[in-house]
Amino acid sequence: MPDPLNNPIEAHRQATYAYVEAFFSSLVASGVEAAFVSPGSRSTPLALTAARTPGLRLHMVLDERSAGFLALGWARQMGRPAVLICTSGTAAANYLPAVTEAHHGRVPMVVLTADRPPELREWGAGQTIDQVGIYGTAVRRFTEMPSPGLDFASVRHAEAAGRRAVGDALGLAPGPVHLNWPFREPLEPPTDPGPQRAHPREWVPPLKAEVNAGEIETVVELMTSVERGWIVCGPMPPCRERDGHLAHLARVSGWPVLADPLSGLRRGHHVEDAPVLAHSDLWLREEMVRARSAPRMILRFGDAPTSKSFRLALEAHPPEHMVLVDGSGQWGDPGHRATHWVRGDPAQVAADLAERLPGRSIDPHWAQALLEIDRRVAVTIDESFEAAAIMDELHVVMCLERSLRDDCTLFVSSSMPIRDVDAVLPVRREPLRILANRGANGIDGVTSTALGAALGDCGPVVLLIGDLALLHDLGGLLSARNHAAPLLIVVLNNDGGGIFSFLPIAEQATRLPFEELFRTPHGLTLRRAADLFELPFEQVDREDRLEDVVRAWLESGLKGPRIVEVPIDRESHVARFRGLVKEAGRVARAGLAP
Amino acid sequence: MPDPLNNPIEAHRQATYAYVEAFFSSLVASGVEAAFVSPGSRSTPLALTAARTPGLRLHMVLDERSAGFLALGWARQMGRPAVLICTSGTAAANYLPAVTEAHHGRVPMVVLTADRPPELREWGAGQTIDQVGIYGTAVRRFTEMPSPGLDFASVRHAEAAGRRAVGDALGLAPGPVHLNWPFREPLEPPTDPGPQRAHPREWVPPLKAEVNAGEIETVVELMTSVERGWIVCGPMPPCRERDGHLAHLARVSGWPVLADPLSGLRRGHHVEDAPVLAHSDLWLREEMVRARSAPRMILRFGDAPTSKSFRLALEAHPPEHMVLVDGSGQWGDPGHRATHWVRGDPAQVAADLAERLPGRSIDPHWAQALLEIDRRVAVTIDESFEAAAIMDELHVVMCLERSLRDDCTLFVSSSMPIRDVDAVLPVRREPLRILANRGANGIDGVTSTALGAALGDCGPVVLLIGDLALLHDLGGLLSARNHAAPLLIVVLNNDGGGIFSFLPIAEQATRLPFEELFRTPHGLTLRRAADLFELPFEQVDREDRLEDVVRAWLESGLKGPRIVEVPIDRESHVARFRGLVKEAGRVARAGLAP
Repeated sequence: MPDPLNNPIEAHRQATYAYVEAFFSSLVASGVEAAFVSPGSRSTPLALTAARTPGLRLHMVLDERSAGFLALGWARQMGRPAVLICTSGTAAANYLPAVTEAHHGRVPMVVLTADRPPELREWGAGQTIDQVGIYGTAVRRFTEMPSPGLDFASVRHAEAAGRRAVGDALGLAPGPVHLNWPFREPLEPPTDPGPQRAHPREWVPPLKAEVNAGEIETVVELMTSVERGWIVCGPMPPCRERDGHLAHLARVSGWPVLADPLSGLRRGHHVEDAPVLAHSDLWLREEMVRARSAPRMILRFGDAPTSKSFRLALEAHPPEHMVLVDGSGQWGDPGHRATHWVRGDPAQVAADLAERLPGRSIDPHWAQALLEIDRRVAVTIDESFEAAAIMDELHVVMCLERSLRDDCTLFVSSSMPIRDVDAVLPVRREPLRILANRGANGIDGVTSTALGAALGDCGPVVLLIGDLALLHDLGGLLSARNHAAPLLIVVLNNDGGGIFSFLPIAEQATRLPFEELFRTPHGLTLRRAADLFELPFEQVDREDRLEDVVRAWLESGLKGPRIVEVPIDRESHVARFRGLVKEAGRVARAGLAP
Repeated sequence: MPDPLNNPIEAHRQATYAYVEAFFSSLVASGVEAAFVSPGSRSTPLALTAARTPGLRLHMVLDERSAGFLALGWARQMGRPAVLICTSGTAAANYLPAVTEAHHGRVPMVVLTADRPPELREWGAGQTIDQVGIYGTAVRRFTEMPSPGLDFASVRHAEAAGRRAVGDALGLAPGPVHLNWPFREPLEPPTDPGPQRAHPREWVPPLKAEVNAGEIETVVELMTSVERGWIVCGPMPPCRERDGHLAHLARVSGWPVLADPLSGLRRGHHVEDAPVLAHSDLWLREEMVRARSAPRMILRFGDAPTSKSFRLALEAHPPEHMVLVDGSGQWGDPGHRATHWVRGDPAQVAADLAERLPGRSIDPHWAQALLEIDRRVAVTIDESFEAAAIMDELHVVMCLERSLRDDCTLFVSSSMPIRDVDAVLPVRREPLRILANRGANGIDGVTSTALGAALGDCGPVVLLIGDLALLHDLGGLLSARNHAAPLLIVVLNNDGGGIFSFLPIAEQATRLPFEELFRTPHGLTLRRAADLFELPFEQVDREDRLEDVVRAWLESGLKGPRIVEVPIDRESHVARFRGLVKEAGRVARAGLAP
């Protein structure tokens, strides 16, 4: 290091960069592989160091909001933290939507924001806002870092802070951590920075909650005391091993599994011989059906399921026992119906229960009736599409599930698409990974998140998204243009917000400003969005064409994002959905008739 | 109201809507005129009530981030609070960038976020995040509203809360207030809501800090004790009356005024016979010039000026006395050089000082030399453009200032454009209102903010913006497409971040990933953005063409936003800027030679 007295500027630079380099080396050694960086000046030490850290892949993203969701998508897909880097000021504020989703969706992220040093804050300096704790309760930890420089550049502290950031992000409930970095000028690197050291990787292992044997005993006793029980599997991060344990528990107990599309239970080899229900959202809507299918006990894994039918059925016929298995302290029980909480890793709980259960504990006729209803509804859905003249949203889901390969991820937008998928996606032994932003259920940042997932190393990603969500995240299309990721964006274009047609407000549509305030049609030509961002584009309105397009894309080498627009007629979609509900109700009534 | 026992649902609806209506009536009676609403379900009572409140103009905006900046722009232009309305979840998180800018820029806003009621928060309910205090220290007040319904629907409370929200937003330091609204279902309006009551308007007057006579006396004594003083006018919200008082003070004292482009001092009738400097950013760069022009006292109004030259000159030659006039408790002194703080309304302070000053207190030769330098630099700038073969950023500023009418607002993006304007915009008696997001200096939301300003009732708005800021706020172009506001978007397109070429990092460009990490060229064809959003578009690269386009637009009836792209060669711009600095330095050296 140069003599601080002779050359204090160069010495400050060397001290600053040595500190930042130690931090990044430690991040990478702890298992971090991807950084999403937005341009700026105050963040110069972070960005330059990230760029030269071996083992860290950098992605430049102009819009910090989009960058936040890219990091979220990457981390959601990979199950490991991604790093965000931005400059000071409102840049940091733009991360809040993605940080919030990461918090609720339990996605690990390490957020690094550059800042002015404390003496410049609240004194009218440019691009200086209050970044201390800016993400509020949405982060696992907030740390105000020291200003590195001549006075402080402890490599030990920087290395420890890097490991700890990864560890904090990978707790029982993974999530975002925020480190705020005040830098004093000069921000530029030393003249001769020397080589960046590479550390050997020492992955930070995921933390899991140990299972309490006494609690398992209690649940086993409850399960053997009732003859009608459901295993309810809500949204969970992808984990094939856990899926296997859950399916095994279902086989051993004989209890039907309500499989949310985001649970992993609906798709994969584990479904073989397992009693898995896929379409209860369609058939669980009538009082007689709800009453006769109501379980006396529910054993729930994962978050609260997407299905509103299920929620209402639960309200109408609450079980005597509702056991929530909770590995991360989420307490996800908006109806406050849980009678027992089992805190422990869900995979382990399922394995332990299957091992301890003395045998089947089920009313076999009742369980068989439910499975038979679900199977018949699946056939009804299939037939309905064979007969259909025009394609609608549900049809698109069916086309995708038929044409996607085992190595594909289906990323589903919030609002209508996830409900479409929940309703019609069948149980199949062909694996299909399904992801969504179901932490906070926003329609913001969806394209960016799917793009981030496609930048992970897990195969091609197909995004199913509506036109409003697509337009909400135009920054995501800009990011898509700059990243050669295997992403197919399938846009359901019904020119506005389709979900509102299913809400009670639609019943008053004629006397209210329904179109203006809720539907908000836009009339945009989506092809032009593809032109602007120089993305390949197709419009398809026939089923076979969509399947062809998807298959051709999968065989094409997957060189960069691509948009497929499917024009949707809103009224037809509503009619089709309601028609299926009616048909499914008929099947369920018949199946449960005394 | 229907009997709650007989028809509790209808009674809940009536109670909820009566409460919300009382709130909105009170907002409007207090002077609120514009609401920016994003679609959603939980916000139904707010959106529907806003839509039927007489005197409130509704603007629908899909992207909440853009909506936040539209409200900011409207309020910045009008000086009165705009209302924001969104649904629960990450929708609310998207407001943070605009709320942060409103906080630092002292722009009044009333932010209304719908929420789930407390019993559903942190229990895994959909679209439910922690919205309590979500904007942290960036709001003047946060209020968790009661859940209106059968238990609580006090019209008195709702009315008082409405008035108070406006009052809180219009304090000494105007800013955003946040009210979080938990709604229980049903959210739909009563069957017969009855007419919405209209209240007479009772504008909430702006709050001003009274001036302390003793402090005025102290400043007068200081001013008469020195022979070399500057009045420094930094960014302030537009106010013609205050401009007049400040110009009068300058005439009475003889002190030269450093007029930031956002101070209002550079343009308007008040400049007649007033000693106003416009180009010091160009000529205040050399040590000899800084030393000889250095004042012994500075009297500062408004925020810290944009000019970096001024900041560095101040550091090199700090005055004995630096008086900060501060009407809103900003303490905007990043250099910590202030020796005196005068807390009071700036217009009144200026008027009182001019009245109490016994007469001129200035070294007339020194002051005359500074004014003469500034005048000569203005001539140099003019001549430089006459001789120029190609148009650059500075040239565009000159074209705009020549072609804009008195009723126009020039909205200037952060980053390079505001520095361009600071450098070359001359002092003129023709009024020109100039606005920018100089609270946090972000390049986010710039188009949306300018669009919001154009939706106010203050004449046409011309936005000067770079290509990166334009692409950062694509949601703003989507909003522009849906709003027939008189907005001309002039895009300086140099394919990336031009400002980085002026920063120290550029000196190391050859050995660093400068293009990838800082400049970030994108290569997009901006015409296609205009195609997507169906906005009229022109590309101009000649001075006379730009002036023609602007004049034609002003005479055209101003029917909706329009984009004009000016291709900029980055290297030429840097060379031109540096050439002007050199010329200005020569002029200044000659003018200050002993």
